[in-house]
Amino acid sequence: MTEVNENTALLGTSPTKSRFRLKAKTRKIMIATFVLFALAALLFQISDSSTVPHTKPKSDNKKNVIFFVTDGMGPASLSLARSFRQYKYDLPMNDTLFLDHYLIGSSRTRSSDSLVTDSAAGATAFSCALKSYNGAIGVDPFNAPCGTILEGAKLNGYMTGLVVTTRITDATPASFSAHADFRIQEDLIALHQLGNYPLGRMVDLMIGGGRTHYYSGKSRYGPSGTRKDNRNLIDEAINNGWQYVGSRSEFDSLKLGHNVSLPLLGLLADYDIPFDLDRSHSKYPSLEEQTITALNALSAATKNSDKGFFLLVEGSRIDHAGHQNDPAAQVREVLAFDRAFKAAVEFAENSDVETILISTSDHETGGLVTARQVTDDYPEYLWYPQVLDNAQHSGEYLQMKILNYDGNNKKEFVAKEVLKNDLNITDYTENDLHELVTLADGSKLQEKLNDMVSVRAQVGWTTHGHSAVDVNIYAFANKQETWLDILKNLQGNHENTEIGSFMARYMGIDLVKVTGLINETDHSAGINVKEINRVDLYDKYHHKLLNLRND
Amino acid sequence: MTEVNENTALLGTSPTKSRFRLKAKTRKIMIATFVLFALAALLFQISDSSTVPHTKPKSDNKKNVIFFVTDGMGPASLSLARSFRQYKYDLPMNDTLFLDHYLIGSSRTRSSDSLVTDSAAGATAFSCALKSYNGAIGVDPFNAPCGTILEGAKLNGYMTGLVVTTRITDATPASFSAHADFRIQEDLIALHQLGNYPLGRMVDLMIGGGRTHYYSGKSRYGPSGTRKDNRNLIDEAINNGWQYVGSRSEFDSLKLGHNVSLPLLGLLADYDIPFDLDRSHSKYPSLEEQTITALNALSAATKNSDKGFFLLVEGSRIDHAGHQNDPAAQVREVLAFDRAFKAAVEFAENSDVETILISTSDHETGGLVTARQVTDDYPEYLWYPQVLDNAQHSGEYLQMKILNYDGNNKKEFVAKEVLKNDLNITDYTENDLHELVTLADGSKLQEKLNDMVSVRAQVGWTTHGHSAVDVNIYAFANKQETWLDILKNLQGNHENTEIGSFMARYMGIDLVKVTGLINETDHSAGINVKEINRVDLYDKYHHKLLNLRND
Repeated sequence: MTEVNENTALLGTSPTKSRFRLKAKTRKIMIATFVLFALAALLFQISDSSTVPHTKPKSDNKKNVIFFVTDGMGPASLSLARSFRQYKYDLPMNDTLFLDHYLIGSSRTRSSDSLVTDSAAGATAFSCALKSYNGAIGVDPFNAPCGTILEGAKLNGYMTGLVVTTRITDATPASFSAHADFRIQEDLIALHQLGNYPLGRMVDLMIGGGRTHYYSGKSRYGPSGTRKDNRNLIDEAINNGWQYVGSRSEFDSLKLGHNVSLPLLGLLADYDIPFDLDRSHSKYPSLEEQTITALNALSAATKNSDKGFFLLVEGSRIDHAGHQNDPAAQVREVLAFDRAFKAAVEFAENSDVETILISTSDHETGGLVTARQVTDDYPEYLWYPQVLDNAQHSGEYLQMKILNYDGNNKKEFVAKEVLKNDLNITDYTENDLHELVTLADGSKLQEKLNDMVSVRAQVGWTTHGHSAVDVNIYAFANKQETWLDILKNLQGNHENTEIGSFMARYMGIDLVKVTGLINETDHSAGINVKEINRVDLYDKYHHKLLNLRND
Repeated sequence: MTEVNENTALLGTSPTKSRFRLKAKTRKIMIATFVLFALAALLFQISDSSTVPHTKPKSDNKKNVIFFVTDGMGPASLSLARSFRQYKYDLPMNDTLFLDHYLIGSSRTRSSDSLVTDSAAGATAFSCALKSYNGAIGVDPFNAPCGTILEGAKLNGYMTGLVVTTRITDATPASFSAHADFRIQEDLIALHQLGNYPLGRMVDLMIGGGRTHYYSGKSRYGPSGTRKDNRNLIDEAINNGWQYVGSRSEFDSLKLGHNVSLPLLGLLADYDIPFDLDRSHSKYPSLEEQTITALNALSAATKNSDKGFFLLVEGSRIDHAGHQNDPAAQVREVLAFDRAFKAAVEFAENSDVETILISTSDHETGGLVTARQVTDDYPEYLWYPQVLDNAQHSGEYLQMKILNYDGNNKKEFVAKEVLKNDLNITDYTENDLHELVTLADGSKLQEKLNDMVSVRAQVGWTTHGHSAVDVNIYAFANKQETWLDILKNLQGNHENTEIGSFMARYMGIDLVKVTGLINETDHSAGINVKEINRVDLYDKYHHKLLNLRND
């Protein structure tokens, strides 16, 4: 799905300086300095304690950084998944997600050219620590490639990895490992990811979907690769020493990362790994399994190094459930992510290497609201988690099930097999049923199914795109000074770019220097990109080109 | 507007204990203990610094507590108001609200009987530090009056105050100063607020709207009081020694609190003070002026006391703008609140009394989303703040303007005076205009006007009621130990009741003891309340009666 949007040109008046703002800045500095004092006090006064993060990293220089992106997860997704989980597992009303215990602040998500970011600009804010335009993959608002923290980490001796549940060439992982003017250049992105660009191979491990941009047509890796250049990058990768896994059984042969030879290319689906709600455990690993595999493999590979690893883990399809307005799929995606995050915290707790986890979202998707007015009457204050619990499959899965039906009583099939058995919906109208039986467009069918669930759950959506609400920041560190350093820098409300800046500083990365090494990267190949003077638009909309970088 | 909603009965299965949850609890304790160490380190190691909160409170026991409630302000309201302000005042893209600098966490808002709280249960969670049912004013789920932190503060020697922009008898201020089975018992609430209940007078200062429940029919205080018992509580209050102000000029005579004799009853409107967008500065003070007046008056009155004051300040009508789905009114309400909060921080910075500020919301209202799909096409990622800037009045104001028109060309009046001049909307259809000219129902007219603004701004809403998203917690303290104590208790994600518990502990209040003093309170008078066994419903929905109190 192309998310490059048309730019908006709003005229502004002349810039002014705000006293209000200056006073507020003073406050911020005051608070930051305050936390710094706590840090200093801890550094010099508290030697050790079994109650504080308890591992004692062996080396001052060796660090692991695990960065989580919950694509499309806004604040309402947390409330939705938390209450769903309480309902489903019969937990007390103050039971929370694992993630909830690690909340430290929130992130402002806008991109350089819109108040509502896409995932490409959102991820580039993290990877290059700068604001760029919607669609930008590791390039700045002037279309110049920008060095990423993954590249900087690799150049500094770290091992690097990407774990996702969507295409590995999709915007979030791409923005860390490739440079492209627009996110739809996924053929180009795959080339960069394998090292076909000035820096050579920067990625040591990839696990996710998106095989399709790694081969063309029919091959032993799949029936219908979509690369336009007829290359088979999987064969090329294997020839260049990559270990390749393309199925659940091959993934299982990795023994959760204890039997891995890096670099590892794990492409477990042509496009997406199914929603966790639909996932067949015998066919696809969970995000938790993928994460544990990556952590064990990278940990083993850096065992004798004085540098650790940088790993990106994305809960990619929270966003897809949002785009599709599918609350039943989304709550399961959030819970699947929560388990992966928990596994990583446990990894960090048991590691003797200084390890930090930072988790945030690029943006909210769908305009999800945990309440929805379904009649003209004044609304009741409630929503119904049991409706989501009733749903045994996503709309994405069920529309395929309906479209693939080839029997001779489709109406009965839809009524019994889909509505009753899969969704436990029995109060549908004849019109509903008629629509479901006759709609030939899969996406419209999916929309109808998801709407039937959402209305009954009284869960609201305002868009199939993204929204501009601040998203949460979560963090953990297994070393006390580092934990306070994270708090000092990321506690409270921050620009998304500050998260990238922090990780860069933490790993000793000079992003400007990395940027200098990739000037010659081909970032426009493979697609006829319409020329747009984004800088002009940017300037019109936002009055001035200030603070692209926050550091 | 009555917000008592019908209860939902969802059947659950048997309770289970989650290992997941226990592990997470361990984490939480670990993190909390960690912060405690920072606190201890600061207490014993850092003597002073001009860069940390810099006032040096004279007494260890004297404390001021300023508690802010942004009624109905969810996370999206912040993003909306922040971007609106950037647009309106031509500020950089990383400019923030004053409030943004004080974010420390988020609050889970559900009530005892619904996943979506109303303002009464929301405020009772703060005032009594317990979860109660939607509609509950200072009573527990068993309809028993519960002691509030305002009462506890007064009994401990503090002065107390309430500042709001809606009716002073509305749910939020009522839940601190009265006890009623249902929020609609505002006649009873007014009586409690003046001291007509077992504890006697607990409130020293009230400034807001809501005069109507303080008198009956026509009187010198207004044309149409709505008390059913024909009492004139304003006269009674004056006879009992209250200073009364009922107009802008009388408010001005208070000299921003420097010329006040407590107790003070300030009832500046029969119902609400107008939205800040519509407010005539010559007729009504701003929330900032109200707040400064209260702070100065309470500060002066406690000058020679060894106890400080407890003040509740509510940005009441953020909620109303949400109910009405009026984004233009809401952004101005948020900015007006931001200025009031800023004034209080400045007060605390200049005070020689230990002073804390805590600000949070009871819930989100309207299902506000900062993006809205307005066509079937795949949505653009943006919204338009200039549309809100164009709006010179709220829908509430403009519907009255249209309905009050008595000329002979209503169509031209609506087109020119309302759409063009007040909203700068020129792309309306003939149908739009026809609706606006012919609709006789004010609330439908208001809805139409607000929808025309929202659609053009591409701002979404999913309900005229509330939603369940977590809301933000902000805090400030002018003393370093206290600031770390707040962080230790309220940093991260918390139940709304924990905010009440913290304030109670901070002021040395035993809420159970206060509760014991108010058993005899008449909390059901004045209204024929339909008997509902809420406890049964509660039990069905939530499986068990656990954790009503979080402490």
